[in-house]
Amino acid sequence: MQIPFKTIGILGKPNDPGIAKTLNVLFGYLKQHYDVIVAIDSAAYIDHQPIVSCVAEQLGQRCDLVVMVGGDGTFLSAARVTADFDVPVIGVNLGRLGFLVDISPNDLPDKLHRMLQGHYIEEKRSILHAKVIRNKQIIHEETAVNEVAIHRWVTPSMIEIVTKIDNVFLNSQRSDGLIISTPTGSTAYSLSAGGPILHPALNALVLVPLNPHTLSNRPIVIDDSAEIEISFCQTKQINALVTCDHIEIPDVLISDKIIITKYPKPVRILHPEGHDFFQILRTKLNWSGGYPN
Amino acid sequence: MQIPFKTIGILGKPNDPGIAKTLNVLFGYLKQHYDVIVAIDSAAYIDHQPIVSCVAEQLGQRCDLVVMVGGDGTFLSAARVTADFDVPVIGVNLGRLGFLVDISPNDLPDKLHRMLQGHYIEEKRSILHAKVIRNKQIIHEETAVNEVAIHRWVTPSMIEIVTKIDNVFLNSQRSDGLIISTPTGSTAYSLSAGGPILHPALNALVLVPLNPHTLSNRPIVIDDSAEIEISFCQTKQINALVTCDHIEIPDVLISDKIIITKYPKPVRILHPEGHDFFQILRTKLNWSGGYPN
Amino acid sequence: MQIPFKTIGILGKPNDPGIAKTLNVLFGYLKQHYDVIVAIDSAAYIDHQPIVSCVAEQLGQRCDLVVMVGGDGTFLSAARVTADFDVPVIGVNLGRLGFLVDISPNDLPDKLHRMLQGHYIEEKRSILHAKVIRNKQIIHEETAVNEVAIHRWVTPSMIEIVTKIDNVFLNSQRSDGLIISTPTGSTAYSLSAGGPILHPALNALVLVPLNPHTLSNRPIVIDDSAEIEISFCQTKQINALVTCDHIEIPDVLISDKIIITKYPKPVRILHPEGHDFFQILRTKLNWSGGYPN
Amino acid sequence: MQIPFKTIGILGKPNDPGIAKTLNVLFGYLKQHYDVIVAIDSAAYIDHQPIVSCVAEQLGQRCDLVVMVGGDGTFLSAARVTADFDVPVIGVNLGRLGFLVDISPNDLPDKLHRMLQGHYIEEKRSILHAKVIRNKQIIHEETAVNEVAIHRWVTPSMIEIVTKIDNVFLNSQRSDGLIISTPTGSTAYSLSAGGPILHPALNALVLVPLNPHTLSNRPIVIDDSAEIEISFCQTKQINALVTCDHIEIPDVLISDKIIITKYPKPVRILHPEGHDFFQILRTKLNWSGGYPN
Repeated sequence: MQIPFKTIGILGKPNDPGIAKTLNVLFGYLKQHYDVIVAIDSAAYIDHQPIVSCVAEQLGQRCDLVVMVGGDGTFLSAARVTADFDVPVIGVNLGRLGFLVDISPNDLPDKLHRMLQGHYIEEKRSILHAKVIRNKQIIHEETAVNEVAIHRWVTPSMIEIVTKIDNVFLNSQRSDGLIISTPTGSTAYSLSAGGPILHPALNALVLVPLNPHTLSNRPIVIDDSAEIEISFCQTKQINALVTCDHIEIPDVLISDKIIITKYPKPVRILHPEGHDFFQILRTKLNWSGGYPN
Repeated sequence: MQIPFKTIGILGKPNDPGIAKTLNVLFGYLKQHYDVIVAIDSAAYIDHQPIVSCVAEQLGQRCDLVVMVGGDGTFLSAARVTADFDVPVIGVNLGRLGFLVDISPNDLPDKLHRMLQGHYIEEKRSILHAKVIRNKQIIHEETAVNEVAIHRWVTPSMIEIVTKIDNVFLNSQRSDGLIISTPTGSTAYSLSAGGPILHPALNALVLVPLNPHTLSNRPIVIDDSAEIEISFCQTKQINALVTCDHIEIPDVLISDKIIITKYPKPVRILHPEGHDFFQILRTKLNWSGGYPN
Repeated sequence: MQIPFKTIGILGKPNDPGIAKTLNVLFGYLKQHYDVIVAIDSAAYIDHQPIVSCVAEQLGQRCDLVVMVGGDGTFLSAARVTADFDVPVIGVNLGRLGFLVDISPNDLPDKLHRMLQGHYIEEKRSILHAKVIRNKQIIHEETAVNEVAIHRWVTPSMIEIVTKIDNVFLNSQRSDGLIISTPTGSTAYSLSAGGPILHPALNALVLVPLNPHTLSNRPIVIDDSAEIEISFCQTKQINALVTCDHIEIPDVLISDKIIITKYPKPVRILHPEGHDFFQILRTKLNWSGGYPN
Repeated sequence: MQIPFKTIGILGKPNDPGIAKTLNVLFGYLKQHYDVIVAIDSAAYIDHQPIVSCVAEQLGQRCDLVVMVGGDGTFLSAARVTADFDVPVIGVNLGRLGFLVDISPNDLPDKLHRMLQGHYIEEKRSILHAKVIRNKQIIHEETAVNEVAIHRWVTPSMIEIVTKIDNVFLNSQRSDGLIISTPTGSTAYSLSAGGPILHPALNALVLVPLNPHTLSNRPIVIDDSAEIEISFCQTKQINALVTCDHIEIPDVLISDKIIITKYPKPVRILHPEGHDFFQILRTKLNWSGGYPN
């Protein structure tokens, strides 16, 4: 038996007045049945006042469901603030279907209503955890829903990246960088770099080299229980660029190590009934046609 | 506690006199300690006579270990005849390291001796099972260690392949064909077609389109518990070409369905201690250099 | 000064009643100003009777312009029957823009009228010429507007293809085959196989390997004045499959040589003024958006 | 009739004591027959003193041939200082064959001697010229033998690059960057990014997108007489990173335009007789085997 939701958070794409109408419809509906807390960024767009608001980072702690409005990018933010608290996320898109945001504003509030009655499909998506190690100390850590990416930095030359998997040497490659992607991220940046699509239910990660000097360097799919250790061969550079979902980890040195593991808690996504990953894939990647009879 | 081996089979690469010397060293050593049965093809190369021999297909039933001599191709044959009987395989190569055959003839009999004392690493590799369905009847079935491949056949035009995963429509694609590969096969034909490398321990398959008309058709990695159903859009052709590890399934019609699942029994491979998949990968794919200090 | 057209041929996509309406509009307009000859296949769709018709193969000889109705595939047929006679081709599409057929039925007859007044852009596209050599004799020859492709044939294994350029050994590659493509063909089958786009004005060909065993085998672009010689390493097969624009050359043996050169005469295409190859590329390949301000 | 060389320059890989022995052999031989000028960097390694030396930049002006010692990277420097003066370059490698440096130190001085007697093959390789335009003024210009590359810069997100060819809009693409490569560069960085190999004799350039967001963005080969104009869509960034042969052009703003054309003067390379580009290709890319009989 599912426990009914009591407090629901709303998190909208920041600085986008285009979401105001959807936010108000959403708020108006939720307010009738639940306690509602709105992320401060989004609160300004809501006409009904006063409302309860908080910084986005607190939504996970204070709600037992977060409904977000925006694109796949906004979903990444919602995932980061909810995963630690086992709080599920529902994604309302801006009119264009995303892999993670699969309720259209036009379907509000009906489709959401049915979901809140328990008619949903829950999916757990694993998250990555990146730690920067200097002198055996963790000096920075960050989570990533899509991918951790290592890039060359302020240098017009390739870098040389050493990768170990569970403490076993994999390879040392000259390249523009390396992507470590979750199944969720496999349809994002990783795909542009030639990585395969990983089905969301797969307990796996993919390592995708960026323009590797050695032509036989190819994407490698490994179990997501592995610990990935990245270090750099000594070069003239002193900095390295490491990003988590396109957000930069500051001040990484070429002498640091980066340890990437699965984050202990996954994101919980609630999809409407009938959710079909393959259908979204066909739509987003412009695969032709429906089912041929 | 491991049960010591009692009867050991020998299976050599067919029609290759180059294996005679290795076969004799192997036979001479094994004969001292075990009952030995030699596949008929290989028996002719063994000087010591008389010897016990049988057709390769019976080795699995009659032995509790098979040592094969040859390349990765011969391994595929050994795997097919042993998997049903839970009989492990040890691979001796022809002087060139393979992904599956990792004992050098130069290391005979010492390395083998240590293994037979129980100093080995066992690895299970999943196998595919392909069934051809016509009028709801299975008219042919076959196993594949590397991959099942669907090809266009006697036609200079692309074919249109419809794929369902666990009875959910994935896509309909015009292409030269489709590879469904195991992790084992991911470093073989699938790699030539742009597929990713799957770590052998991964419970996954990869579907790799062959020269797809739609440029956004990409390799898709899915859980290996899935049932994959392949059918064809009606065309002017009447035949389809389906191969298992490059062996053709005869007489497949364009109106047949092909069902691909994981075979219930995996192949058991015994590796010498110190076996390192990543090292073999670096060697086989010419990735440069060893471990940089 | 351009010589005005006097006799205009009409060639429609065979066996497609969907072109009837466009054919009649086209015929009705042309008949008022020119002598018109209709390919026999298309003649059946034209209501106005009697009309002058001939087999498609004679259109080049009897007309000084051919207007074709269909897709890029039909264009290839038109190109083959006109190139020898220096007769230009105008392509009317079936409602969906093609790379080669860039007049919409909706723009008939106005756009065509302006073109026939001399307001057009002429483009010459080079054609390939494939000869099959057995015992130093040419036993078959064929032309190709898009590509000559060498495929493995009735064999589930890779073939091994030896390529020479101007009698200099290029390489010997194990693969599923090899495409030799013109700039025109570079946006067709060659693109599916990972080949680059060649600008139509380029005097170049591209050799694209099909799923090569050696991962560093890559597409190679060479001058189109080169003579390409293809032969096969001895294998157990006796047949090879060679196609020109997806039409099979019959009965090629694995012991034959295939010589591919530029055909002495290019196809002449007439485009409406304002024709923009890059715009068609953006449309056909679903590149997003127009020009960002 | 070729004019015999009178003054020969020597340019070695900078800061590499490993070239000292080869430099001395080279100098000792050349000194007997020619006036020799040594680049200052290399002069320190030559035992014979005194010698005539100058900065590398003046070698082109003061010599009628430059012999360089190093890898393909050093060749790029030699090319830059000689092209303006129509001075040819001979490349001596460091023991490992390069695409551009094809005389082995072991073949000195014999092979060089034969070349200086006129037994060589001359090849002209085109060079790129990049200009940075701000407020309609050229604020910086640079040449590139391999490639001009546009990269995202100090930003973890993709950039959006607008490309025009001869003032016609090609596309606007979100990506990590764009490579514009010569045939010479097509076997270097461009190849890592998925570009095709362009035969050196081809009058062409290739535009290779770096990890483009749109999967159907592919390398495009165009005539090298084209003018390529690169600009950026307005973003939050203010800097762009433009490199010529991996050397950064300083201080490029996101609001600047980059114009890339063929440099009026090519590099002149002298190869020993028997030079075979395809053979070097096979060696460098590890294509298997020699010519199969």
